Amino acid sequence: MEIILADHAGFCFGVKRATDLAISLAKDPEKPLYTLGPLIHNPQVVQRLEDLGIRAIDRVQDVEDGIIIIRSHGVPPRVIDEIKARGLEVIDATCPFVRRAQEYAKQLAEDGYQVIICGDQNHPEVIGIRGSVNSEVLVAKTLDELPQHKLKRKVGVIAQTTLSIQNFKNLISQLVERVDELKVFNTICTTTEERQKAASNLAKKVDLMLVIGGRNSANTNRLVEICRNEGVTTYHIETADELKKEWFENVQRVGVTAGASTPNWIIKEVLSVMSEFNEEKKVVL
Amino acid sequence: MEIILADHAGFCFGVKRATDLAISLAKDPEKPLYTLGPLIHNPQVVQRLEDLGIRAIDRVQDVEDGIIIIRSHGVPPRVIDEIKARGLEVIDATCPFVRRAQEYAKQLAEDGYQVIICGDQNHPEVIGIRGSVNSEVLVAKTLDELPQHKLKRKVGVIAQTTLSIQNFKNLISQLVERVDELKVFNTICTTTEERQKAASNLAKKVDLMLVIGGRNSANTNRLVEICRNEGVTTYHIETADELKKEWFENVQRVGVTAGASTPNWIIKEVLSVMSEFNEEKKVVL
Ligand code: F3S
Ligand code: F3S
Repeated sequence: MEIILADHAGFCFGVKRATDLAISLAKDPEKPLYTLGPLIHNPQVVQRLEDLGIRAIDRVQDVEDGIIIIRSHGVPPRVIDEIKARGLEVIDATCPFVRRAQEYAKQLAEDGYQVIICGDQNHPEVIGIRGSVNSEVLVAKTLDELPQHKLKRKVGVIAQTTLSIQNFKNLISQLVERVDELKVFNTICTTTEERQKAASNLAKKVDLMLVIGGRNSANTNRLVEICRNEGVTTYHIETADELKKEWFENVQRVGVTAGASTPNWIIKEVLSVMSEFNEEKKVVL
Repeated sequence: MEIILADHAGFCFGVKRATDLAISLAKDPEKPLYTLGPLIHNPQVVQRLEDLGIRAIDRVQDVEDGIIIIRSHGVPPRVIDEIKARGLEVIDATCPFVRRAQEYAKQLAEDGYQVIICGDQNHPEVIGIRGSVNSEVLVAKTLDELPQHKLKRKVGVIAQTTLSIQNFKNLISQLVERVDELKVFNTICTTTEERQKAASNLAKKVDLMLVIGGRNSANTNRLVEICRNEGVTTYHIETADELKKEWFENVQRVGVTAGASTPNWIIKEVLSVMSEFNEEKKVVL
């Protein structure tokens, strides 16, 4: 049996960076460590961080003393101010791609554009970007969702980093018709798309796909769907414990991918358990 | 019989302005008058201008002395320089909307954007806009037509004023995916679309449509097509001479529209001959 790991499986750059940062801080903690919200939507990772002494809190007010880690989504600058005003320390793990979206939004507003974020207004990243701008920001996924009378002559648009490019293209092409001047920063992070493309390419070439990731993780479920759409038998697991030897009977090639919130150590565990099932022990990484 | 003239029938703002300007100059000519290229693609208008002493020339070199009128499409600035260098006078009737497109293109280039004109590279207007920019300008209607390696990180786009909005939207949405920063000025002049919409609305309400304009005029032919698509009998005429009384037998309501290059006097002639056919003589303008 040949085991092939898909390109771009698992953590994206920004999530890996934030997790590595948190773990390295925990090695030699001078003060209690906290993350504002769970660092990542994966119960195993959150558990591991807790074991290392890093607790997820909901509100800055819940902490008296210590260091607060800002996760990859970022926060509005006023949250940073609030933390500092309480005499707490901040370690900012905002993903550089999210930071860039914040800067563009700010710049657009300063240049007199009505800023629009193409995305979901309840997403923490969008809340952070919105809070970085000193004037009113509109958030929408389609033109219909926008208050039409607020569309100025000059409109500036950025995207939530995890938005689908199709969604962004649709909004932009609707806006072209509505405004005189349109400035667009394509802030979509290609990680998600690359992960999905790699999964779908791999699914075409194997007899079986394994997708590793939280059952409540939207992007992991999407990977499962993409693989199944390629017509290949696909199992969705959260950890190596769920692997069943009989799945692999008479299987020549297995493809493995993982959602954005699946850490490397879980992927490695899965690969290692699988290679024990495997007489040929041929793992292609 | 009720005769209804469509909104926006005939000359657009820029063409009317250029024609009026030429005619007013001809009233009291100090020097020979020329237009660089035919002022407008309508044989009756060109004939009338000739009768007034305004000749269409192809090249600046063909003139020794006189005044050269720049038509609504505009020209590259070097043409103006050439005219002045020959000691000739210039009267610039470039449409203000075209002028604006030239200015935007120039500004985009100065701000470091790779300028793209969405349009037809052989169109005089596009040649004029291109010539207004001091760096390389790309012209295309679709992404495929663009030399991909020339797409810089920052791309600025304007449209030929007569482009269809759908075409512009398509190119923009293709570019969103390809570049980091996109600045778009929607320089499409809505005249054409408004004329077409008004024609199609009127065609729904009448028993017969008359479309006035040159048989070689693309936008006039398009009006004919739009009216026929509404399922109404539609006649295409160039002048009042072609009107036939029998067309109007048993007809209650007639709609009239005209292409962009059809002057008002031809429209008036048609309306006046028709109202002679008309016993009720009810003309709604
Ligand atoms: S957090 Fe991840 S999805 Fe992209 S924007 Fe940063 S690398
Ligand atoms: S010439 Fe006419 S079509 Fe528009 S750009 Fe000027 S009014």
